[in-house]
Amino acid sequence: MARWGDHPADLGEAARAFLREHVGPADPWPAAGPAEWTIRDTALSPDEIAELRGIVGDDGVRADVASRIAWTGGASYADYAARRDGKLVAGVDDASPSSSWDVPDAVVLPRDHDEVVRVLAACRRLRLPVVPFGGGTSVVGGLAAQGRRIAVGMDLLSRLVSVDAVSCRATVQAGITGPRLEPLLSARGLTLGHLPQSWQRASIGGYVATRSSGQASTGYGRVEDMVEALRVATPEGTLTLGRGPASAAGPDLRGLLVGSEGALGIITEITLRVRRLPTTKRYEGVMFPDFTAGCEAFRALAQGRATADVMRLSDERETAVTLAMSGPRGVTGAAFSRYLEARGVAGGALAILGWEGTDRDQVRDRRAASWRALKRHGAVSLGRRVGESWRSGRFHGPFLRDTLLDLGYLVETVETASDWSGLASLHASVTGSLRDSLGPRPGPYVMSHVSHVYETGASLYTTVICAADREDPVGQWRTAKHAVSDAIVAGGATITHHHAVGRDHAAWLPAEIGALGVDVIAAVKARLDPDGIMNPGVLLPPEGPR
Amino acid sequence: MARWGDHPADLGEAARAFLREHVGPADPWPAAGPAEWTIRDTALSPDEIAELRGIVGDDGVRADVASRIAWTGGASYADYAARRDGKLVAGVDDASPSSSWDVPDAVVLPRDHDEVVRVLAACRRLRLPVVPFGGGTSVVGGLAAQGRRIAVGMDLLSRLVSVDAVSCRATVQAGITGPRLEPLLSARGLTLGHLPQSWQRASIGGYVATRSSGQASTGYGRVEDMVEALRVATPEGTLTLGRGPASAAGPDLRGLLVGSEGALGIITEITLRVRRLPTTKRYEGVMFPDFTAGCEAFRALAQGRATADVMRLSDERETAVTLAMSGPRGVTGAAFSRYLEARGVAGGALAILGWEGTDRDQVRDRRAASWRALKRHGAVSLGRRVGESWRSGRFHGPFLRDTLLDLGYLVETVETASDWSGLASLHASVTGSLRDSLGPRPGPYVMSHVSHVYETGASLYTTVICAADREDPVGQWRTAKHAVSDAIVAGGATITHHHAVGRDHAAWLPAEIGALGVDVIAAVKARLDPDGIMNPGVLLPPEGPR
Repeated sequence: MARWGDHPADLGEAARAFLREHVGPADPWPAAGPAEWTIRDTALSPDEIAELRGIVGDDGVRADVASRIAWTGGASYADYAARRDGKLVAGVDDASPSSSWDVPDAVVLPRDHDEVVRVLAACRRLRLPVVPFGGGTSVVGGLAAQGRRIAVGMDLLSRLVSVDAVSCRATVQAGITGPRLEPLLSARGLTLGHLPQSWQRASIGGYVATRSSGQASTGYGRVEDMVEALRVATPEGTLTLGRGPASAAGPDLRGLLVGSEGALGIITEITLRVRRLPTTKRYEGVMFPDFTAGCEAFRALAQGRATADVMRLSDERETAVTLAMSGPRGVTGAAFSRYLEARGVAGGALAILGWEGTDRDQVRDRRAASWRALKRHGAVSLGRRVGESWRSGRFHGPFLRDTLLDLGYLVETVETASDWSGLASLHASVTGSLRDSLGPRPGPYVMSHVSHVYETGASLYTTVICAADREDPVGQWRTAKHAVSDAIVAGGATITHHHAVGRDHAAWLPAEIGALGVDVIAAVKARLDPDGIMNPGVLLPPEGPR
Repeated sequence: MARWGDHPADLGEAARAFLREHVGPADPWPAAGPAEWTIRDTALSPDEIAELRGIVGDDGVRADVASRIAWTGGASYADYAARRDGKLVAGVDDASPSSSWDVPDAVVLPRDHDEVVRVLAACRRLRLPVVPFGGGTSVVGGLAAQGRRIAVGMDLLSRLVSVDAVSCRATVQAGITGPRLEPLLSARGLTLGHLPQSWQRASIGGYVATRSSGQASTGYGRVEDMVEALRVATPEGTLTLGRGPASAAGPDLRGLLVGSEGALGIITEITLRVRRLPTTKRYEGVMFPDFTAGCEAFRALAQGRATADVMRLSDERETAVTLAMSGPRGVTGAAFSRYLEARGVAGGALAILGWEGTDRDQVRDRRAASWRALKRHGAVSLGRRVGESWRSGRFHGPFLRDTLLDLGYLVETVETASDWSGLASLHASVTGSLRDSLGPRPGPYVMSHVSHVYETGASLYTTVICAADREDPVGQWRTAKHAVSDAIVAGGATITHHHAVGRDHAAWLPAEIGALGVDVIAAVKARLDPDGIMNPGVLLPPEGPR
């Protein structure tokens, strides 16, 4: 997609002033429309299209330009920047960054698992690469293929197949999105509770294929904690995995397909653990004296088994932005500032905590246990209004990015995770590497938060804003991406906590799992996708130097 | 080992009477001593032994008969029965069940990771199969190899390498056992909390290689939930896996090595999530009107996020045995019976629940949340004495098996897991298949419990006791094993919840993960162990019909 939403979010004068002061000026960046893009003709022959139509029906194969554009690329900064300038690049490691926009040769829309299997078999015969395409929200170049290929859109595989309310299990087709699934579940008194920032568009199959994690992961778990069973179409046939709630029947092959990013096959059906729909929710804002104190508190909660279901802690810089952006509806003004001063948390670190459940007493007790630890670390409650304000705006981020791009700002996010011991130094090195690699241009403003908490460590999510280099926006971004990725792996942290590998992180995968680990994935791919047609270039690192 | 302990557990007259009444008579079964076993000479040449000694030192290679016996086989019924009769068999699918005891040709005891790597490289050159050997407690034929081979004993890799108390992470060498590790951790105010029935002997590496689950898994998690990082020696080199508390960097290769059962390499070092040592523990006995009510209560706790850390529920038959065996120290007698009658739970189902933590208020609140749900399902508290009695006897099972074997009884356990919807029918089919396949011989007495609870389902652990067939004890066992395994896979349950695949379950693995799933594991093995020297016959199903 060219934009996340049809209407950019309104930034407000306070936020614009903050940008001017802390980042500096930028020139508005107009977006080129599809009419200005150069789209090559489809490389598929009429016979090839006919073969695919023989499987999915005439309507199931679309080779028109509008469809080919619609099922192209993802939502990374490079994707957006290239679209804005009427170009597309394949990602951080593409050798030809200024190559023209390259859309697939056709979009294929299968209607069920068996059609997916047959499509892959046909593509194997035709030596035709396949890009599985869910919501199109990859921010790591997971959809940024180039050259002759089809996109397999999961749009028509979007049914809730069955619900076992006794076992709290729901089986869905992989193309269904959260906004479509949740009402179907809530009508049965259930919820999945997986809430990624890409909520409006991402598919459940995409959640699984990218090993994603939602905003309530501390309480609801990561997506891999929710996957009970999987059905996967591969060029070598069908994998059906997952029996019972837990098993010791050898290696966990579900865990091999979760995070497989379309490179091993297409996940078509998923059985998910679901939860009883919460009847009590309590969200509140909390202010810590500083980010360090907040991290210590979050660690105490995680290690004391006293977590909230949503736990999000901004560093001082993100806190300042949040307060500036919240505008008249938010928690600003002199009275509020005096309150923070009086409680010793002015200039501190803002946290959001949310407890949910079906038993009011239990939610109350869990909150009390959290607060016993929070108080030991200097936390001051800002009340429910701040919590509810965050909750109502929780999915606004992608819209805001449109707005910032319109204004001419580069805005990018970097996410990783570390054990608690290494979190402070990781925070420093990520911040420093972004500042160094993007400076001395106006900005950059670098801010971070912790939003996924584990007993042994936490995620670190960093946002950087600076004036875009309009001569070479992708080059500017690539330089920063290299610097920060090097800093992450040097610090022993993971190259991605919930965005996946795609193309953009593939060069750093060997640092994470070793050359032999990469070879193991390659061996699995060779068994399931012997001709290498599945999402080539994604997940496995490119040959040669990066 | 020939026996679990040097001293068989005392069964008591009440228990003997129960056996006589409910199982029937059996003839004492004397155990043959090692002196009566036929041990072939080592097949290793002096050059081969010298090559191995060049790596691990002279003391590190043992080819004497006593050592070769000590590092042989596991703790399955077939292992015990064969030893008792001076024979050994390779497991449920061995074509020659009456083959003589077959010990390895040598025992090799490496001292560190690098020596393990070098030993595997040497074995690859020598085409010498390797059986990794931790505590020797496999109950599924995981150590029951035959023919030319060495056992690699993990005995000297038993250090606690490092502790990061801030991150609650501890790194251990794989050969360390729980009884050795826990005091080292508790001195630092930490605990692992993994308590398998094989506690006295099993190694942490064995926990991981078999994807095991301890008695407190509901609170502390399965072993795969505890593994933060792994170091694995393979014939192709070293795998080092695991960065940060969670990652989206592609497929989870840790999950591929957890449960790899020595067939892909030797796990040498493990970084574990540890917990703060609990300062408050509350264990109690609970009686339900029947097993069905108990299962419903356990489901309500799991789905209401109101679990205890230990949750164990016996069916009516296991409850009867537990009460009969508990003897004078336990909860028997007329007054107790009248109490159960008065509360409507006579002949019911006994449960043990245990809550642990470092915050007394939190443990109290968690227990209160559990009890709100328990009461809705007719639970009656039996008080702390019953809970503490279970806790003090929690590792007695393996000793008891020695005693029952001495008395001439076949005693075997079968474990699986199912979603909640399927649990009752699984309970019926497992029970029925064991009764049918072992009857009409005296007994069999079949009893079950649920001891690992998940939001979507639970484990089912079944014990069967009957008079041993002294003419063909392994044949008797194999018939029952086939019947119950067929019943489990037909019911859609997992072939093993925490005992692993070994040789005994390998024939049922294709039913669980499909032929293509098996092929994926085989492809990984071909990459890491191209010559197939690692624990051959284990994990991957045998060729041809079972």
